[in-house]
Amino acid sequence: MNQLPRTTRTTLKRLPKRGSHERETINQILDEGFICHVGFVIEGQPFVIPTGYARVGDRLIIHGSQASRMLRALKTGIDACVTVTLIDALVLARSAFHHSMNYRSVVILGRATLIDEREEKLAALFALSEHMIPGRWQEVRQPSEAELQQTTVLSMPIEEASAKIRTGPPLDDEDDYAMDVWAGVLPMRMIAENRLPDPRLQSGIEIPKYVIEYKG
Amino acid sequence: MNQLPRTTRTTLKRLPKRGSHERETINQILDEGFICHVGFVIEGQPFVIPTGYARVGDRLIIHGSQASRMLRALKTGIDACVTVTLIDALVLARSAFHHSMNYRSVVILGRATLIDEREEKLAALFALSEHMIPGRWQEVRQPSEAELQQTTVLSMPIEEASAKIRTGPPLDDEDDYAMDVWAGVLPMRMIAENRLPDPRLQSGIEIPKYVIEYKG
Repeated sequence: MNQLPRTTRTTLKRLPKRGSHERETINQILDEGFICHVGFVIEGQPFVIPTGYARVGDRLIIHGSQASRMLRALKTGIDACVTVTLIDALVLARSAFHHSMNYRSVVILGRATLIDEREEKLAALFALSEHMIPGRWQEVRQPSEAELQQTTVLSMPIEEASAKIRTGPPLDDEDDYAMDVWAGVLPMRMIAENRLPDPRLQSGIEIPKYVIEYKG
Repeated sequence: MNQLPRTTRTTLKRLPKRGSHERETINQILDEGFICHVGFVIEGQPFVIPTGYARVGDRLIIHGSQASRMLRALKTGIDACVTVTLIDALVLARSAFHHSMNYRSVVILGRATLIDEREEKLAALFALSEHMIPGRWQEVRQPSEAELQQTTVLSMPIEEASAKIRTGPPLDDEDDYAMDVWAGVLPMRMIAENRLPDPRLQSGIEIPKYVIEYKG
């Protein structure tokens, strides 16, 4: 399996068995999430900003307004960190100390580069749309030249990256297993239950299949 | 309403009407979420790490192993950023360009301080437990002195902070409203549907009411 390099910065010091540098593991987590948190530094102050993303091969794509402070900072090539976190479960142990969560996260360190070439930019925007809700792009109005101009698209290499994963039941101290306390796992997931039509929707438009089938 | 100070660093440059410095708005978002992303800088490199948290008054509490690289860095008082993001909906517009998400996020800038005094530390751990799943703390084994020693608890002031919120339907270009494309909002939420008992659970232990009623 394709392994990313282990750098000091991406190697877990604690609980190293929860860590992974396998590209397939990292890609699966990235493909399942849809919000990342981007870390960057301006005048010594770290900022962490949530944004959508998509993976295209071994690169992560983000986008936004050309006026965005984050994108303007990132496109100068400063050091950045992009983190994607999936919460899978609450883990209820018999002791307060051993309570935990099951989760899968990916941390990517690197520097972003601007995607400026028109076709490449459109392909990246298509990937972002498909990642958010597959099937949507082909139905909607495509970006105009002015909209393309107003949009900044950045790409970050998925090279210095690692995943961290916790799965399974609580791990209690041996003596605590005899306690009369319920212990176990509460799996959690994001769902989309409902579809609220736009108040200005044209009459007679049915909800498309890809929207009905969207599971979150 | 109690307003936090507007600093250059916490004032939105784009779409300022989406921003808020109201403490009540900020607190509501913090109380609803349960994972934050903590940004900090080591040797020039920003890191963004997910972790649980709780709010106690006008402070945010995080905790973890005393061996954690993040906590060891933060407790020296370096500049940090803590971000909490709630995803409320996908927003499907008639143009690719106007697709969005409804979300509520809080960004807190500041420096953490160590909570070392025993009673204050226990109170913070209680708050973390209650924030994760109310009612759990009183049932489980309390932290031993050794466990307390192994746990680092940090507190961050919620002073230089702001919220950012998007709500409502898509906002399309006026010409696009005539399009024959379904548009609207897909509300999303985290749910806990299931309870998986620990394989080593003692027989005859019923699932507690606060676990059954936990909604995520």
